[in-house]
Amino acid sequence: MSEIFKKHIGKFLTISEKEFEQISEFFTLRQVAKKENLLQEGQVCKHHYFVLKGLLRKFYINEKGIEQTTEFAIETWWITDNIAYEHRQPTEFYIQAVEKSEILYITNENQEKLLTDFPAMERYFRFVYQRAYAAAQMRIKYLFSLSKEEFYFELLRKHPEFVQRVPQYLIASFLGFTPEYLSEIRKRIIS
Amino acid sequence: MSEIFKKHIGKFLTISEKEFEQISEFFTLRQVAKKENLLQEGQVCKHHYFVLKGLLRKFYINEKGIEQTTEFAIETWWITDNIAYEHRQPTEFYIQAVEKSEILYITNENQEKLLTDFPAMERYFRFVYQRAYAAAQMRIKYLFSLSKEEFYFELLRKHPEFVQRVPQYLIASFLGFTPEYLSEIRKRIIS
Repeated sequence: MSEIFKKHIGKFLTISEKEFEQISEFFTLRQVAKKENLLQEGQVCKHHYFVLKGLLRKFYINEKGIEQTTEFAIETWWITDNIAYEHRQPTEFYIQAVEKSEILYITNENQEKLLTDFPAMERYFRFVYQRAYAAAQMRIKYLFSLSKEEFYFELLRKHPEFVQRVPQYLIASFLGFTPEYLSEIRKRIIS
Repeated sequence: MSEIFKKHIGKFLTISEKEFEQISEFFTLRQVAKKENLLQEGQVCKHHYFVLKGLLRKFYINEKGIEQTTEFAIETWWITDNIAYEHRQPTEFYIQAVEKSEILYITNENQEKLLTDFPAMERYFRFVYQRAYAAAQMRIKYLFSLSKEEFYFELLRKHPEFVQRVPQYLIASFLGFTPEYLSEIRKRIIS
């Protein structure tokens, strides 16, 4: 399974088999059941998660008691509450498995040690953060420029496999509307 | 002036005077007049900007013809359209000086060359992107969880110096409401 991780690192830098083995030792493999929480509101955010297989989501519970999903992570995506992770603080988020998943995780201490022992991995994480940041910037633009309905169509156009894979009530939670409203939009497309 | 840049790099790694001189050669210093555009919609985004002095903003023009500000950059902040910069594509954004500014910029080609010649700088950019990504994630949460009015108060509470420095119509453009509405809110605070 860690072939996936090795291949992902290999997109950005060249490492030997032996180096990869040493790098792997900083990570822990974990199986996660569907709907299992990896992180809960109020906990100190200690881990950075890399998805080998499956699908995770990040959400918070708003003042109305509704789960607002802010992020998904599929295979080869990293996910955590980055501010809480860097500063080892309690989080306001939940990270939960949408599907039965297989993940790698690393602690903040180990990530720092990894980067000290293998400075080449700075390049890997630089790319990971650079691309995640670019995607977040695009997301911010969409939040301003597109209506929730337009954003749904954008999602459907750009990532149809994603819309098909994620349960509809979670797509609704990501877009910030009710499952009933999403169901209405979908009916309109068909008719 | 590049003392500011040297000090900023020094927050994340140790480099010698000689190394810094060599690193500096990848960058160009530029003075920017107030309201001057560094980047305009439709142009290929070639540069990554670092603010030494002054204040830049990034915005796009929405379908109603209104400037929607999505980002500001003050001293020691980096700014660009990251997706367009990485892929050397035309941008949908403008980057403009809010105040008379002094900046350093680097081209994508030079940034890649810099990282090849000085791999230690991977660590610097890893931190730059990591923190920018964490801030963008927080922004996304606020866009969901706070009303525009609450976001203004959050800004006022966390960054009063920022609200004071930026012209009110740009604060309004950042928050996504009209200058008139912002003026109303401000009156309510005073009364």
